[in-house]
Amino acid sequence: MPQILILTQHPADYLRRLDAAELPAAVFLSPDQQLLDCEIVFGDPDLIRASLARLPNLKWVQTMWAGVEPLLDPSLRRDYILTNARGVFGRLMSEYVIGYLLLHERKILQRLAAQKQQRWDSSLSGTLSGKTIGLLGVGSIGAEVARSAKFFGMSVRGYTRESQASPDVDAYYHGDALSAFASGLDYLVSILPNTPATRGTVSAALLAQLPPNALFLNVGRGAAVDEPALIAALRSGALAGAVLDVFSEEPLPPGHPLWSTPNTIITSHTSAPSLPEDIAGVFIENYRRCVGGEGLKYRVDFERGY
Amino acid sequence: MPQILILTQHPADYLRRLDAAELPAAVFLSPDQQLLDCEIVFGDPDLIRASLARLPNLKWVQTMWAGVEPLLDPSLRRDYILTNARGVFGRLMSEYVIGYLLLHERKILQRLAAQKQQRWDSSLSGTLSGKTIGLLGVGSIGAEVARSAKFFGMSVRGYTRESQASPDVDAYYHGDALSAFASGLDYLVSILPNTPATRGTVSAALLAQLPPNALFLNVGRGAAVDEPALIAALRSGALAGAVLDVFSEEPLPPGHPLWSTPNTIITSHTSAPSLPEDIAGVFIENYRRCVGGEGLKYRVDFERGY
Repeated sequence: MPQILILTQHPADYLRRLDAAELPAAVFLSPDQQLLDCEIVFGDPDLIRASLARLPNLKWVQTMWAGVEPLLDPSLRRDYILTNARGVFGRLMSEYVIGYLLLHERKILQRLAAQKQQRWDSSLSGTLSGKTIGLLGVGSIGAEVARSAKFFGMSVRGYTRESQASPDVDAYYHGDALSAFASGLDYLVSILPNTPATRGTVSAALLAQLPPNALFLNVGRGAAVDEPALIAALRSGALAGAVLDVFSEEPLPPGHPLWSTPNTIITSHTSAPSLPEDIAGVFIENYRRCVGGEGLKYRVDFERGY
Repeated sequence: MPQILILTQHPADYLRRLDAAELPAAVFLSPDQQLLDCEIVFGDPDLIRASLARLPNLKWVQTMWAGVEPLLDPSLRRDYILTNARGVFGRLMSEYVIGYLLLHERKILQRLAAQKQQRWDSSLSGTLSGKTIGLLGVGSIGAEVARSAKFFGMSVRGYTRESQASPDVDAYYHGDALSAFASGLDYLVSILPNTPATRGTVSAALLAQLPPNALFLNVGRGAAVDEPALIAALRSGALAGAVLDVFSEEPLPPGHPLWSTPNTIITSHTSAPSLPEDIAGVFIENYRRCVGGEGLKYRVDFERGY
């Protein structure tokens, strides 16, 4: 009978949902129980990392987050199957990206300022239609963002290591084609995970390829961005604005220059939260596959990092 | 050879586009020319109204706006074909509606306030998915808004006189089913034109059907709303908020209570401007149909008012 450890700050909602799913042969453990026979862990990567040494029979870890950086440290064991949360963030990420692009194009803040002065501001709005968006990283989240961008009439470019799976990407770029990918974009969106290969991808050189009217959005991981280079580009007006959900250091500390960089919006890692109603379903589906002898979905390659 | 009068504040852009289209047998007149032989007018409804008496041979009016109220006054002649601008506003209206709904659901203003205090605000966002939107009026604009709402996973209700043309509306309501239509909506969007039948449709009684978490958006015409009743609902908290693009009186005068009604956003009739690049195309298409002997598109019924 598989023993499952739930490792998260507020496990009650998860336990209720897993109980309701009537999973076959599951016994749920709490962190203070004897973990000798525990084979399966479902939880937050940082808490799992702290427990790895106490789980001699660990076979499978399902994380509640998309990002699994805490478990990728090469000094840690890799003798188990690691699956992450996928397929549930794309919809929320798309709402975030479209929402902030419309905030910009529709001049929503400018119109709110006019309203405070009781001033009729009938200046024209921009539109998403006909704009070109570039997605750095096109996995399951990027594919959803691409689908939303197409819905609103944008041209979509995708930069990936090699995959070309989304039908909503008009043109794919790989390898050293990063400059061509970025050239002339209206919007650049990073959805890159934090891996050795992605660190600093959004560099001074890449930002210099963007036209001065471009917006940069980061919904991936902060480590993919050279933050001092981004701040310099925003201060000099080489870039029209940035909408940042993720940072090298989180929470972003008070006094950090990004809080007050011109034309920069900070959203405190809220673009696509891990909601129990979504994430429990990911585990339930994978657990049924596990018991049924099928392969698990959303496996992470420790070397590649995603 | 048809003589065409262009009647708008800034005709140059229109003339350039019509010239480039090389329309067959067209001669363009300016308002100070002899209008005796003029059969066709393309322009703004208010300017056309002022010229009606000087156009004895008028056969067809194509307006540059969707709204044709200035030409519907029963004291005015109706001995010509009236067509309005249609089919070009839906995309912009959809961006507007989705943009302001996301402003609300994603707590964008709350997060901007937190940023000013350099405070990490990781409170959860809402989502459009699973919400119920009600569209008052489902013509070509409403159909586009319905399509966008469906894209984001909403349930869509439509209230119309009789039409049921949009496949993206899940449930239609007509006649005295207005209460049932409004009951339980998360978002109510009025796209109603200004006609005798629509005036005051958004009444105290209708607003009372909405749950207190509901938002009201008006992208149709101000006359469809009982503005004092709306202000009362917003002040008492019976309604969570309003996003208003149109008003009984435009421009909304300084000192009008709507400027400072709680949870109310004023956007100064900017949701879907008549852009020459769009509207010229409407006229060009209809002119070719006219010359070719085909029926004109977008005919307005003077009695119905749209």
